[in-house]
Amino acid sequence: MKFGRIALPSPDGKVARLVVVEPEKGRVVDLARAAALNFADKYQATEEAATAMAKVAFPGSLVQALSLGTHLTDRSEEVVSRRGDDASLPLNGVEWLPASDAPLVRDTLNFVGHIKGFHDRMGTPPAPSLLKIPAYTKNSGTMVIGQDATVPWPGYINYMDYELELGFVVGLRGRNLNPETAKKHLFGITIYNDFSGRDLQGNEMPILMGATKSKDFAHAIGPWITTIDEFKDLDDISMEVRVNGEVITKTNSSGTLWSIYEQLAYISLGEYIQPGDVIGSGTVGNGSFLEKGRQLSPGDVVEMEVGGVGVLRNTLGQKQEGLWWPSERPAGSL
Amino acid sequence: MKFGRIALPSPDGKVARLVVVEPEKGRVVDLARAAALNFADKYQATEEAATAMAKVAFPGSLVQALSLGTHLTDRSEEVVSRRGDDASLPLNGVEWLPASDAPLVRDTLNFVGHIKGFHDRMGTPPAPSLLKIPAYTKNSGTMVIGQDATVPWPGYINYMDYELELGFVVGLRGRNLNPETAKKHLFGITIYNDFSGRDLQGNEMPILMGATKSKDFAHAIGPWITTIDEFKDLDDISMEVRVNGEVITKTNSSGTLWSIYEQLAYISLGEYIQPGDVIGSGTVGNGSFLEKGRQLSPGDVVEMEVGGVGVLRNTLGQKQEGLWWPSERPAGSL
Repeated sequence: MKFGRIALPSPDGKVARLVVVEPEKGRVVDLARAAALNFADKYQATEEAATAMAKVAFPGSLVQALSLGTHLTDRSEEVVSRRGDDASLPLNGVEWLPASDAPLVRDTLNFVGHIKGFHDRMGTPPAPSLLKIPAYTKNSGTMVIGQDATVPWPGYINYMDYELELGFVVGLRGRNLNPETAKKHLFGITIYNDFSGRDLQGNEMPILMGATKSKDFAHAIGPWITTIDEFKDLDDISMEVRVNGEVITKTNSSGTLWSIYEQLAYISLGEYIQPGDVIGSGTVGNGSFLEKGRQLSPGDVVEMEVGGVGVLRNTLGQKQEGLWWPSERPAGSL
Repeated sequence: MKFGRIALPSPDGKVARLVVVEPEKGRVVDLARAAALNFADKYQATEEAATAMAKVAFPGSLVQALSLGTHLTDRSEEVVSRRGDDASLPLNGVEWLPASDAPLVRDTLNFVGHIKGFHDRMGTPPAPSLLKIPAYTKNSGTMVIGQDATVPWPGYINYMDYELELGFVVGLRGRNLNPETAKKHLFGITIYNDFSGRDLQGNEMPILMGATKSKDFAHAIGPWITTIDEFKDLDDISMEVRVNGEVITKTNSSGTLWSIYEQLAYISLGEYIQPGDVIGSGTVGNGSFLEKGRQLSPGDVVEMEVGGVGVLRNTLGQKQEGLWWPSERPAGSL
């Protein structure tokens, strides 16, 4: 199945709703509404009581929905088949929200092609420890954006780039897993465009603490999530990126240092992977404009197509000028 | 005022409660309970309705409480003064929770003494860009622990260390601030012990994506938060660390590259600082055992005392052996 999040108007302003996406039928099914109707049928409940119950069972937050464990996947099919027709909206024209609302977006470094391509261009060798441990970083989730959202462009970024990645979405909470036990914790796959300010990375990377302002202005995640049972081979998922309609890279998900289950297990060591967490697959080889010696401009439309998921589309906004920026400390301060 | 979080037994298992801490009276006041009693008095409400109202107004989650804006600081004094006596518990024996439940813990690198001390010991120069931009990293908040908690010690860590830091707690949500507008977003100060596995850092740091398994197993935050109005000079807060009662370092909060307001403003660029977010001050000079050439052992008790806050105390647990660890990739994979 495919799960997404949309915004609907309500007397309380816009509210987030969890939907089942049926691209072949050109529609989305509002799960809370369908579940309320189904609950009222099934238990002879009043519509008001059934609605209250359904909002708790199928909340608009993916994190909350998946915190109810396997309930979402176990119950959605019945709800959609019984009352989906009475709770559906046309796919076109829907206002999408980020596919997950997780507060933390981890991102791995895993595709051999990208690691080599990036370092060739930088003229530096990759870290030897990339062969010892799965590499990942942690991004703030406050600027996660969804399908069709305009990408905010802070004025302090001059060299704007995209990064084509799969987004692995965690289902069940887990800690200290191994690659075998990690399997049941993977809920599904979405598309992750990790927009990046390349000119800022020269200052940020040598500090060794991970990227900051070069990354945490826009993490595009969507358009929706396809559950993991729909993928036959995680190493053969087609991936393509287009800028203003021009195909820049057409590739697939093969050529990684670590399997997703090795990565999930490693990330879970000593800490929790949480429902709704998004873990970037790492940029695929030639999955950034940098590797082509090119960069994005305001107004550019970036489309990422992933087999079994769909197309994630975002438009670059205008540069936001006039922001404060720190003044350099005096030489000799360190 | 001082705000903390405790666990109380209930028919639904243990629940988190927000408390006002009054060390001079040797007590904590359960805010939701005091607010319910006060609400019932003031509006002639039933106790049941007043309790439901109070739980929403003073939730056990600090993130949720501060998401209600200045309500927490505006209303707590009245609630405590009117009904605090009827909703208090002795300070000793309370089961503390982490002072904040924020999902992301940012940590800065800011004290000149620590940067120099760390790099002297490593034999490497600090990054020149430390003078250009405030440096910070992002830690996962799933392993935040509170006062008196035992520190989990994953078996893959051999060289265990502490880091003495202030924890700056965000009150109001904000984005694209400057150092002046950032001022009203700082809620208070707590103590942050950033436990660290030093032997893992040699593999993690060269990857340039920030620390992972060397950090995200235990972030101790507490014992509580003192609101910012109670501090006269943010550059003259006393800080001390003791291991098994031995004073290791006695210092203060002076000697930083950037003010907390410059850091807050920088972190808010292009993204949001959120209610309850904890931002580590960075380790003070001589604020780690590494700088003394020493390391922690299971059973060690680490106490951090900060003027105006109190003492954060944690005991190191036994090493947890038998965890899965990734096997190295073949040479030539990159």
